[in-house]
Amino acid sequence: MKLIPEKVDIKTGNKYIAVLHEDTARMFDLHAGDRIILKNKKNVIRALLDTTPTMRKDHIKLFTEAWDLLEAKKGDKITVEMAEKPISTMYIKEKLNGIALTKAKINEIVKDIVEDDLTDIEMTYFVSACYIHGLNDQETADLTRSIVANGNKLKFKDKIIVDKHCIGGVPGNRTTMIVVPMLTAAGLKMPKTSSRSITSPAGTADTMEVLANVTNQAPKLMKIANKVGGFITWGGGVDLAAADDRLIRVRHPLSLDPEGMLLASIMAKKHSVGANHVLIDIPIGKTVKISNMKQAQHLRQRFLKIAKLLGMKAEVIITDGKEPIGNGVGPLLEAIDVIKVLKNEKDAPQDLKNKCIKLVAILLELTKKAHKGQGLNMAKELLESGAAWKKMQEIIKEQGEKKIPKLSSIFIDIKAEKSGKVIEIHNKKISRVCRVAGAPKDIQGGVYLYKKTGDKVKKGEILFRIYSSSKQLLDYASKFAKEDSAYTIK
Amino acid sequence: MKLIPEKVDIKTGNKYIAVLHEDTARMFDLHAGDRIILKNKKNVIRALLDTTPTMRKDHIKLFTEAWDLLEAKKGDKITVEMAEKPISTMYIKEKLNGIALTKAKINEIVKDIVEDDLTDIEMTYFVSACYIHGLNDQETADLTRSIVANGNKLKFKDKIIVDKHCIGGVPGNRTTMIVVPMLTAAGLKMPKTSSRSITSPAGTADTMEVLANVTNQAPKLMKIANKVGGFITWGGGVDLAAADDRLIRVRHPLSLDPEGMLLASIMAKKHSVGANHVLIDIPIGKTVKISNMKQAQHLRQRFLKIAKLLGMKAEVIITDGKEPIGNGVGPLLEAIDVIKVLKNEKDAPQDLKNKCIKLVAILLELTKKAHKGQGLNMAKELLESGAAWKKMQEIIKEQGEKKIPKLSSIFIDIKAEKSGKVIEIHNKKISRVCRVAGAPKDIQGGVYLYKKTGDKVKKGEILFRIYSSSKQLLDYASKFAKEDSAYTIK
Repeated sequence: MKLIPEKVDIKTGNKYIAVLHEDTARMFDLHAGDRIILKNKKNVIRALLDTTPTMRKDHIKLFTEAWDLLEAKKGDKITVEMAEKPISTMYIKEKLNGIALTKAKINEIVKDIVEDDLTDIEMTYFVSACYIHGLNDQETADLTRSIVANGNKLKFKDKIIVDKHCIGGVPGNRTTMIVVPMLTAAGLKMPKTSSRSITSPAGTADTMEVLANVTNQAPKLMKIANKVGGFITWGGGVDLAAADDRLIRVRHPLSLDPEGMLLASIMAKKHSVGANHVLIDIPIGKTVKISNMKQAQHLRQRFLKIAKLLGMKAEVIITDGKEPIGNGVGPLLEAIDVIKVLKNEKDAPQDLKNKCIKLVAILLELTKKAHKGQGLNMAKELLESGAAWKKMQEIIKEQGEKKIPKLSSIFIDIKAEKSGKVIEIHNKKISRVCRVAGAPKDIQGGVYLYKKTGDKVKKGEILFRIYSSSKQLLDYASKFAKEDSAYTIK
Repeated sequence: MKLIPEKVDIKTGNKYIAVLHEDTARMFDLHAGDRIILKNKKNVIRALLDTTPTMRKDHIKLFTEAWDLLEAKKGDKITVEMAEKPISTMYIKEKLNGIALTKAKINEIVKDIVEDDLTDIEMTYFVSACYIHGLNDQETADLTRSIVANGNKLKFKDKIIVDKHCIGGVPGNRTTMIVVPMLTAAGLKMPKTSSRSITSPAGTADTMEVLANVTNQAPKLMKIANKVGGFITWGGGVDLAAADDRLIRVRHPLSLDPEGMLLASIMAKKHSVGANHVLIDIPIGKTVKISNMKQAQHLRQRFLKIAKLLGMKAEVIITDGKEPIGNGVGPLLEAIDVIKVLKNEKDAPQDLKNKCIKLVAILLELTKKAHKGQGLNMAKELLESGAAWKKMQEIIKEQGEKKIPKLSSIFIDIKAEKSGKVIEIHNKKISRVCRVAGAPKDIQGGVYLYKKTGDKVKKGEILFRIYSSSKQLLDYASKFAKEDSAYTIK
């Protein structure tokens, strides 16, 4: 049967999608979600079928990509045939049945994900299976390698490439923007890709974007890293882990974080820039992702095992996540903190500074840039000598410098309702206030913390100041902050 | 922000779908798969978001249903807001985490499925969770009730409503079309909905359709059942288990049959016509769905428990599935078998006749129409007296009689390659030959078995005859049958 093509002027993003009338599909013994082969005189393509109850039964609707690839035109005729399902769907079913997957099977699944040959439903089955049955260390390492193999890679000639990663959940924890210039100032190569915020008030990419362009393409980034030692860019702009991005799309609706996928996702980003010396930071605290030492130790062991399987030297540090780090939370306020630390300014947040020194010390010793026990001194020197700040200015210049805006003049102070000592600052509540104030879309939006845990406060003293570009959002945020203070004072 | 609507002229089948440019979505902090609220001056609707890399950033594309419900028009402005996720997504996550669901939570999930408020991805997570963790008896009964509560129902005044169901996998097993007229001739009410074939050469609905219309609507079906006692119709035309149909759509890509869903799916169809006396037939055999007695007994126990929880009287019979039942396989050939049995013709297939008598006997005793031990005699009498055939003619007339076509004159005989005794007939291979010959789309397509297991054959004798409307398909089918004979002769 020959069908007459109609164009649907919507780009689907790589996927080839065709639509048939329900009855036409039934005649071909086809269901929505089946793969079909479409032929005209010019071309043959493999597409995904959708069906609709009302359209002309002798027509076939083609979304932009399918229309273009077929070079379809008015008066054309299209032949439809059923296509085989990719074999990877069988492997997904094996995983659903609790069978551990081989490297070859995992790679087949990942390849099909990247080539858009698996539907959302099929990918969701894969995520479910990995979530419920888990992925063992070997599967996780294989998944990591497959994600890297089926995405872009950055290849450097250097023997040592360093990277770091924080599991997240602590607002204001912008160590990357200090650690990268410190380590590159020490002569190490550190090509750093970071994420944008999903649920936090700012990702490293959002904060870095206040100072410099973070959407440079791979060739430019290679050049920058080879010239000045490193960069800090948005990973999403480089497509290093295409499979991972597609899996995240189906993980999003239920916010699923299958442990093996989380590990593979992190390690793939390191592996794809060639990192072989890696530091993972796991903050623990009641109000961050990892709430207790047992969980943290479990994750630590898994990271170390998988790194070993991948041939990486790795260290995992378990850090304090009981309050935000630094004083600023939100893109601009965090960027200001970072610059203060790099410039050795008097009012630089000491917790952020000390944490960075600690992280850098570990990586200096891991890479043998520093002798055992000498990392801390060397790290301090890199920061306090101004070498790191100099390097950061080079990185910013190479990536494309931006003019830092002034802090918003629209703000509201949240004051202590009683005197006492700050016992705890609720990370998620602070994040929420910043989000309501507009962060990270509004780079001005966020919070500056005047008091941290351990500080004594008097009733009426300022605990934190909320900034926003919008008077209305500021009102919402301050209302929220007043109703549900993030501070525990005793 | 106000967006300009554009219509996408595709009906999605109830779902309201809107498309934004990726960048516009990001500005609203929205992702593909999120729910959004769309407002214009006239209306407010809840829609599902999709994104695309290329469209006008100040526009919003609306698929037909969304466009119509909003009464959108050119020059209109649409406001977009993020909508909350339905709470049922949280329950799905609980199930993924292995937590058994309460009746209320299951009902919330089913309600949202029917109201198209859960996306394919979210439904897939639900199916995965049920597949891997299983559904206990209580959950299965609750799922059954929820499917029934959220679909159409047929309500009869009779105290006793009978139904039967076969787990399937045995070609030619068209007992329903004989059992229904037998039991209605005994004065019982039997409103029977059946499925069309998915992977078999014919579903009961496909075979019944050779004789009568099977797409009558609910009010007409009620009238027929109240007049003549029963009907045999296609269930998909009555929308009795809308949630089930939607779940089957996401189960299809990986052919997943989570046991609890399978049970709920079957029981819901009985429950929705008010059946309270039910017989389940589980054929076992190497080449059908259930291959051993242990599996069959397990399923039997589950059926009985769930029926009890649903307040149904149930019996489960485990039958022989070692070969096709009757001689014909394929819509027309099966219909001919059925009529021969009902008409007590000499060459009527005895295995089909005896099986129907057995099934009817059990239901006569279960409903107390027959005293214990008297069912078999009464069943025989119903058939052999011609009462069942008379009833079938009434049913056919009420549903809308069709003219039975003659058997196709295009056929090929498959002959024995050696002499011996037929040990086994491979069900799946016979089905495959019939499918290749065009069944069930081509009602002529199928196979007539001249030899059954136990029969002695001589080399060169006809084993079976393949029919088709198409010479080409017949050639394919016979080639297939010759390469890989379904008969084991020793």
